[in-house]
Amino acid sequence: MAEVFAPRAHVRQMLRVEAALARAGARVGTMPTAAADAVAAACDAAHVDERFDVAALYEAAATAGTLVIPLVRRLTELVAEPGRAYVHQGATSQDVIDTALVLQMRDGLDLLAADLGAVCDLAAGLAERHRATVMAGRTLLQQALPITFGLKAARWLALGVRQLRTLRAVRDDALALQLGGAAGTLAAFGTQGMDVAQALADELQLPLPDLPWHAERDRVAAVVAALGVLAGAMSKIAGDLVLLAQTEVGEVAEAAAPGKGGSSAMPQKRNPVDAMSALASARLAIGMVPVVLGAMTQEHERAAGGWQAEWVAVPEAFRHTSGAVAHVRRALDGLEVDAVRMRDNVLQGGGTLMAESLGGALAARLARAEAQRVMQDVSRAAARAGTTLRDAALGDPRVREALSPDDVDRALDPDAYLGSTGTLIDRALAAYRDVQRDVQRDAQRDAQRDRRHDEEPG
Amino acid sequence: MAEVFAPRAHVRQMLRVEAALARAGARVGTMPTAAADAVAAACDAAHVDERFDVAALYEAAATAGTLVIPLVRRLTELVAEPGRAYVHQGATSQDVIDTALVLQMRDGLDLLAADLGAVCDLAAGLAERHRATVMAGRTLLQQALPITFGLKAARWLALGVRQLRTLRAVRDDALALQLGGAAGTLAAFGTQGMDVAQALADELQLPLPDLPWHAERDRVAAVVAALGVLAGAMSKIAGDLVLLAQTEVGEVAEAAAPGKGGSSAMPQKRNPVDAMSALASARLAIGMVPVVLGAMTQEHERAAGGWQAEWVAVPEAFRHTSGAVAHVRRALDGLEVDAVRMRDNVLQGGGTLMAESLGGALAARLARAEAQRVMQDVSRAAARAGTTLRDAALGDPRVREALSPDDVDRALDPDAYLGSTGTLIDRALAAYRDVQRDVQRDAQRDAQRDRRHDEEPG
Amino acid sequence: MAEVFAPRAHVRQMLRVEAALARAGARVGTMPTAAADAVAAACDAAHVDERFDVAALYEAAATAGTLVIPLVRRLTELVAEPGRAYVHQGATSQDVIDTALVLQMRDGLDLLAADLGAVCDLAAGLAERHRATVMAGRTLLQQALPITFGLKAARWLALGVRQLRTLRAVRDDALALQLGGAAGTLAAFGTQGMDVAQALADELQLPLPDLPWHAERDRVAAVVAALGVLAGAMSKIAGDLVLLAQTEVGEVAEAAAPGKGGSSAMPQKRNPVDAMSALASARLAIGMVPVVLGAMTQEHERAAGGWQAEWVAVPEAFRHTSGAVAHVRRALDGLEVDAVRMRDNVLQGGGTLMAESLGGALAARLARAEAQRVMQDVSRAAARAGTTLRDAALGDPRVREALSPDDVDRALDPDAYLGSTGTLIDRALAAYRDVQRDVQRDAQRDAQRDRRHDEEPG
Amino acid sequence: MAEVFAPRAHVRQMLRVEAALARAGARVGTMPTAAADAVAAACDAAHVDERFDVAALYEAAATAGTLVIPLVRRLTELVAEPGRAYVHQGATSQDVIDTALVLQMRDGLDLLAADLGAVCDLAAGLAERHRATVMAGRTLLQQALPITFGLKAARWLALGVRQLRTLRAVRDDALALQLGGAAGTLAAFGTQGMDVAQALADELQLPLPDLPWHAERDRVAAVVAALGVLAGAMSKIAGDLVLLAQTEVGEVAEAAAPGKGGSSAMPQKRNPVDAMSALASARLAIGMVPVVLGAMTQEHERAAGGWQAEWVAVPEAFRHTSGAVAHVRRALDGLEVDAVRMRDNVLQGGGTLMAESLGGALAARLARAEAQRVMQDVSRAAARAGTTLRDAALGDPRVREALSPDDVDRALDPDAYLGSTGTLIDRALAAYRDVQRDVQRDAQRDAQRDRRHDEEPG
Repeated sequence: MAEVFAPRAHVRQMLRVEAALARAGARVGTMPTAAADAVAAACDAAHVDERFDVAALYEAAATAGTLVIPLVRRLTELVAEPGRAYVHQGATSQDVIDTALVLQMRDGLDLLAADLGAVCDLAAGLAERHRATVMAGRTLLQQALPITFGLKAARWLALGVRQLRTLRAVRDDALALQLGGAAGTLAAFGTQGMDVAQALADELQLPLPDLPWHAERDRVAAVVAALGVLAGAMSKIAGDLVLLAQTEVGEVAEAAAPGKGGSSAMPQKRNPVDAMSALASARLAIGMVPVVLGAMTQEHERAAGGWQAEWVAVPEAFRHTSGAVAHVRRALDGLEVDAVRMRDNVLQGGGTLMAESLGGALAARLARAEAQRVMQDVSRAAARAGTTLRDAALGDPRVREALSPDDVDRALDPDAYLGSTGTLIDRALAAYRDVQRDVQRDAQRDAQRDRRHDEEPG
Repeated sequence: MAEVFAPRAHVRQMLRVEAALARAGARVGTMPTAAADAVAAACDAAHVDERFDVAALYEAAATAGTLVIPLVRRLTELVAEPGRAYVHQGATSQDVIDTALVLQMRDGLDLLAADLGAVCDLAAGLAERHRATVMAGRTLLQQALPITFGLKAARWLALGVRQLRTLRAVRDDALALQLGGAAGTLAAFGTQGMDVAQALADELQLPLPDLPWHAERDRVAAVVAALGVLAGAMSKIAGDLVLLAQTEVGEVAEAAAPGKGGSSAMPQKRNPVDAMSALASARLAIGMVPVVLGAMTQEHERAAGGWQAEWVAVPEAFRHTSGAVAHVRRALDGLEVDAVRMRDNVLQGGGTLMAESLGGALAARLARAEAQRVMQDVSRAAARAGTTLRDAALGDPRVREALSPDDVDRALDPDAYLGSTGTLIDRALAAYRDVQRDVQRDAQRDAQRDRRHDEEPG
Repeated sequence: MAEVFAPRAHVRQMLRVEAALARAGARVGTMPTAAADAVAAACDAAHVDERFDVAALYEAAATAGTLVIPLVRRLTELVAEPGRAYVHQGATSQDVIDTALVLQMRDGLDLLAADLGAVCDLAAGLAERHRATVMAGRTLLQQALPITFGLKAARWLALGVRQLRTLRAVRDDALALQLGGAAGTLAAFGTQGMDVAQALADELQLPLPDLPWHAERDRVAAVVAALGVLAGAMSKIAGDLVLLAQTEVGEVAEAAAPGKGGSSAMPQKRNPVDAMSALASARLAIGMVPVVLGAMTQEHERAAGGWQAEWVAVPEAFRHTSGAVAHVRRALDGLEVDAVRMRDNVLQGGGTLMAESLGGALAARLARAEAQRVMQDVSRAAARAGTTLRDAALGDPRVREALSPDDVDRALDPDAYLGSTGTLIDRALAAYRDVQRDVQRDAQRDAQRDRRHDEEPG
Repeated sequence: MAEVFAPRAHVRQMLRVEAALARAGARVGTMPTAAADAVAAACDAAHVDERFDVAALYEAAATAGTLVIPLVRRLTELVAEPGRAYVHQGATSQDVIDTALVLQMRDGLDLLAADLGAVCDLAAGLAERHRATVMAGRTLLQQALPITFGLKAARWLALGVRQLRTLRAVRDDALALQLGGAAGTLAAFGTQGMDVAQALADELQLPLPDLPWHAERDRVAAVVAALGVLAGAMSKIAGDLVLLAQTEVGEVAEAAAPGKGGSSAMPQKRNPVDAMSALASARLAIGMVPVVLGAMTQEHERAAGGWQAEWVAVPEAFRHTSGAVAHVRRALDGLEVDAVRMRDNVLQGGGTLMAESLGGALAARLARAEAQRVMQDVSRAAARAGTTLRDAALGDPRVREALSPDDVDRALDPDAYLGSTGTLIDRALAAYRDVQRDVQRDAQRDAQRDRRHDEEPG
């Protein structure tokens, strides 16, 4: 991800746009083919590094106000007449910067989807393997009812699957060509503006939007907002991991790796380093969201400040979201799950966890309201005496009358009080298979399209 | 919107959920029908105000930690045996609070869509009427090229149309039933959990999610993020209005209304009060987005803090987004557009605005590169001498040789340099018609469904 | 705090400013004393409720753009001639709104300081009482080294003390009179503007700023930023409490109270309700900070949108910060500390916690580098064998040679490895006494000033 | 600023801390002098680049969780026995990272203060030179009353001066040594912890805090909050510049510079590039504030995520705030002020601007209430007829009776209705001289201290 949004990649994508613009002009007829060839040749990706001094371009941009001014100046030097006069024909700086950004975002979304797919794979594996691994369900960090670790992982999975769907949706809906010329009218192309725009969209395989969107930034904002939600989703998983890895809980540990997670003072420590890093990255990614939303107040046909803030905020949002996803992936990869400790923690939490279950068993024998009264008394008695719920229950004559000790033990068995856990896990796995099928189908479609595109006469 | 998210509405929606939960239980068979009837009767919307002291419930909630605890306590008092024991059966506080929130959000999104539709209508009207009203296109707040006010309005329209689509998408994708019981396993329903959940979803006409989502808040976050983008979109329109209404620009004014927009010191002033209020509301709405995204790090099966922050942040996000949309609507309604001033401003900006056009005309006669050199010289000459572009051009022998004075005047005519403006306006209007058609089709479908639903035996 | 920032209080404070403005005018001579008396009488706090319909004023404000326009209209109705013409003399809406806000903020800061003082008292009490209560120090939520609960409380105390100092500093530095007239020149007062401003500042006991600050909002931003830091500080304490209250940690519990912290499904639960609410409030308070900072881009002499966003954001910031402080206060008040469980957790964490200590003991006998090598081997051996550090150490011949079993036990005694804990606690307590002394001295000074002020001829 | 917070500078500062820690240990006696010398020699700034591979350290840090682990590993390799065992003695990673951050922040605040001082100088110059340059005062972007450009600049100056004071205050209050050892008890130093801490504070010329503050981040938060306010202050100035530079206003222009502010499509444009960049930087800087405040919820004795988010957010906050200040400085430097256009705009705005003044003149002759009535009629008549206030006034018989045409003209003279403008400018300049005096006095004090420090035997 760092590469996709690196200055060098930015320059390459802008040159790709300039080359495609020239080819589009030639196709439509606003530019001689020879001129277009000359421009495209000067933009050739294979020679960018030798021809363009990225650092110098950025420095000149700070004064010029945009990167395109020095870039086009340099590109113009590189193109011989008669092509020279056609460099950047009809476009404005923002056309090139925005379309390059869209191309970067497309690559970025694909990378994120791949990494997120791996997170889903890992979560699905945990959901399957730990389908029946009983652990404490915790509300407000207090033990509440038994669940299984598989159910927890299935919830992580479902969360990830929904984000996969969102990434696909924003890739389809929010990425679009930018071409409008200096004030969004395509005036420099005369009457051929829409034809050039369509040809450029084809060249870059980007949707043609209804209108240029220089100062209407909802598309960019929607992408960044989706990243923010994704980062938040990763922070949920990472937060759970940190809590489960606490010394006093000890239910999971990140896989050991050379040089990982020690402490300078205490080398024996096993710190949840990847979960911690994911949490930090998520905070930073989310921090970019209001910057981009707040910057939507863009003046007239091009903004003074709001648009320019995106130049930093969008790459940073991708970078940190990517960090969050990658660290969660690493944290889940090889995660050590201590099923024994999970069960121990359920038992040590005492009966609290099983009070609802025992209450249900009583309600099958007593009047419901009476059962609730009994359970309140028993729960309080257990808390007061510091004893287990089992002892308190067996010490209550009303319970003994309604239930045998075996009945009580059955009611206190966490494995027997898991409700729809299995079904819910299956539903999460099925939803994942659905999205995998969609991803595969699209990949095939894209491959076909690319094949057709390659076969077309250039 | 204030009503939809008022405490009283919140309580009503929670009681609606409790009633539906009882009916669902009766349908599935986890509860006697008589009990369900008793619960539903106690929740009857027609008697909420007399039966429930909303302020007292909120006060008790501050200590209890959730509103559901005192609400269920009071509800239980109201239900006679044998229904009493079945109040809130199998559900946890969060099931009720979240599902009630989803119902509120559904109402809220519908209200927003209606108001936003009105904004689109007004923008579409301006786009049509001012299709040919020439004005200055401005980049970095500097005059750049001529556009028409219709194109500007068409861009506002397209921005609004995309938000309409987004509101519809989040309504379909992000709203879902919440029912999981104390730790998300539906354990209190034994093996019938999914049946109860499905029945409850039917009762409330909400989608049944794959899993309960107590601590996976991406759905709520996606709604609030969409509101943030919508608020940002409104701020774009409002910002343009404020700038166009400046004394020195004077191209638009909000419609006068009694008591509107004066100043206590200068009652004759015509302040852009609605645009100003929209800008303020948008800032506040966007401020809620990172709060909700940041709160996604929710611990285990129910969060301590993150979830509770939503209780304020989500209603506030709706309230302020609604404020932004409503104020933009009011600002556009009856907007006074001064077409004469728009044209004057184009002319007073001098030739700068038409330099690209004149350069194009020269390029048709001279070599392209030579034309660019001439235009640079002419532009500088005009700036240096403080004269118009026309005078500078006619003073340059190379121009005089290439173009007749009539040619120069034609090249300097803003009406003749509008490129694809008309086509772009048409595209925006067509996109709006498309979304209107979709909205209508859905409304019909919903009406049919409601009719079917009403005809079903309760 | 809800009262300080309620609409009614806002109106009262604005009337207080109008009354003071009239008296100041009379003092300086820009207004007849009779007129000033008439205005002041109409503003009399004792009659505000009967004279002013707060809801109607707010409704009119939504159209007018500011609350002052309808307020002054109503006030003017209430004042008989010849006073009527002098109502609001020379001031602009923003003068009244801002100065009223400053008065509200002054009250708000005082309330916060009082509540925060109570938090400090409670933390100081815990620091004293648990000076020697050993518990696990935890880094990245892993047990690291022993500390005492008193030290943890002392760190909370020091954090609170620094915020007390900050509240005092912003109260002194950031609150100032606003009076500039329509464009900040005090033109309507002729040459007497500064005299009126000084007189008004005296009336309201507010500092006179160097210049009016209508569009320079750093003062307001500094107050809100300080609230954000305070809210963040409270979230640190609340977060620790939630973690310490986990079922598996069990070291603290919030005091039980009727109706507090149960769960609708499991009434026996002891949820950390106040800590949870503090965390939610802190998130909401912090959410207001970027809104206010971002709104500082205020146009020219009065902003269109940025200033108006403060009207909501500043009260909300106070309300939620106050919620965070109040909930931490309630969480600490009567906090149940389980010293036995704290020590148990240290012991159960095994030797990990004491590795550094044992390493130090070895380094006193062996070469330092050799001691480090031995400790690494011992730590790994303990981890591999799942045994305690003690057993692993006594199983290592190099340790046995260097240290007797008694030496090892001494090195593994957490009470003996607390470093400067006591000194640090003393330093925190001393810093608190210092700030208490300053608070007291200021209170005496203020009381004297108020007495002098009361004795002056009005 | 990029340099101060560059990875290389970070490593250098951490090595500076390690060296100072060794020297402090030697002074107090926890370490042999020879060992300390060996450590300090290995940290020698002159050899950092050849000895430490910064990129490799950062890569290892991603796995290790902190930069200090690989740094200390490498440092240990570089130190010969017997120093080797004393490297990093008694400290924890966070001690080194935080103290290095404090040193970076100290440098960063000094750089900011220098740049901000230059902004103040420029604003003071404008305030002096344009003390009497009349321009329109604008509220809600509508012309309201005349002011002078000097007054506007004086308000910018006063805003800057207050930020200078704030920077000085946070430098004094919020920067402090971090040294606590693994859990904040200084246990590894036995009873000498406070002595080592004091010695280290002396070495680095940093204040010794009452307690270590590993998880109490209010100091860092206060610095970043101050940067956010400063960035917001800069955005106020930059926003005014962009508005004043609009084609239709044309009152200021940024100084021309080679390669500055053109447009790729229209090279003749004069874009307010520095103001625009300042606005973008301010948005980005402010975006970091809630990240750092939200990260204050730090767990126990060291956080998992919140602290690590600071590693990016704090440097970014400095970088972008510095960008905002530097761009405002460049925008003001050589700012072209068009006093003729300013006066033209006042006149073109017509009488609106002078209505309050004329009303005042009438009130001196008529009863105040009658004067207000007349002015309302006159204002409305002018608006209705599209004429100037002068013509409308002279057309009203009540005006003609009260005032001669000369009186009317005097009342409509903007130069004569500037109120306390001159005094206010003087007050801003005086406040600036005060802070300059303080800065100078401190610089002398620091120079003396440094001299004394250098003269002390090392």
